[in-house]
Amino acid sequence: MPKSVYLAGPEVFLPNAREILDLKIALTREAGLVPVSPGDLEHPKTDSKFELGLAISRIDEHLMNSADAIIANLTPFRGIAADTGTCFELGYVCAQGKPAFAYTNVKADHGERTRSHFNGEWYADAAGLPRGPDHILIEDLGFIDNLMLHGGVVNRGGEVVVGDAPVGAELTDMTAFRRILAIAAAKLG
Amino acid sequence: MPKSVYLAGPEVFLPNAREILDLKIALTREAGLVPVSPGDLEHPKTDSKFELGLAISRIDEHLMNSADAIIANLTPFRGIAADTGTCFELGYVCAQGKPAFAYTNVKADHGERTRSHFNGEWYADAAGLPRGPDHILIEDLGFIDNLMLHGGVVNRGGEVVVGDAPVGAELTDMTAFRRILAIAAAKLG
Repeated sequence: MPKSVYLAGPEVFLPNAREILDLKIALTREAGLVPVSPGDLEHPKTDSKFELGLAISRIDEHLMNSADAIIANLTPFRGIAADTGTCFELGYVCAQGKPAFAYTNVKADHGERTRSHFNGEWYADAAGLPRGPDHILIEDLGFIDNLMLHGGVVNRGGEVVVGDAPVGAELTDMTAFRRILAIAAAKLG
Repeated sequence: MPKSVYLAGPEVFLPNAREILDLKIALTREAGLVPVSPGDLEHPKTDSKFELGLAISRIDEHLMNSADAIIANLTPFRGIAADTGTCFELGYVCAQGKPAFAYTNVKADHGERTRSHFNGEWYADAAGLPRGPDHILIEDLGFIDNLMLHGGVVNRGGEVVVGDAPVGAELTDMTAFRRILAIAAAKLG
């Protein structure tokens, strides 16, 4: 029985969302896994934007509940960090004790991206820890994002793939996704 | 038996982290709840930054496992969205079926903040949905952040408090936190 994986990521927001989601679905099938993809269910008719949001949240949680594992696209989205919905979903599936995998299409790690956010302005505090000009700690552990995300994956025996997509293709490049799919397929058996 | 709440948020990164965490801990006790706070356990000695990150991840997951509920501070952090570690933690506790509560110290909702990110440049697509100049969808549902976060809280019977902290006090103001504490204390009994 092939294992199913929830495909978390910000692709649902792209102008060519359907095309990219369908590509990820096809690649997942090719890897011998069953794709569980947000955006695959019809959204119910609701009376307000608020109710629509709540309904989509319930649908996506239902999809996660049905999946055996997760592959989270943690590529930075509108800033230096991963899409917050994807982060919620990674935590959700981790709490269920299911195998978790993650990837990013941006090579610079969380510490590097945060220093870039401050245009390279940072300093080492008395304890030797890096801080931005706002004195807020720069988490600099070599992780692709906050330690709860990278740590949650690795501590469950999952893996993190770091890609290096061409500029402009950070949200659509499939190189790192193909690599994590191969790893997940091997691990999930 | 008073209920315990995991206090998720980016306060651990602040220059006065201990002071602010201790304040949140004290306010939680005053509200009749038992605080479970990241940063409360000694970090183990490890051989590398990577191992340290994994150890902190395990400790924080352990703390979440021990808590009865969560209060997540979703105030935007270094950009237009919530701290990604906090988002992971909210998803984690939601998956455990525990009551979830959230607050933000910034009044502008997710749609407003995203339009500000693009300096107000956006357009309505053929379906009437707002998109940025990069053609990426602007989720505009009146939520404080991505629908999975706000929806996950509301769909579990939790509440979301929207504060309006003075500029510069977004990460330290306790007004919204006090309000959500009162709500959580009443709901958790």
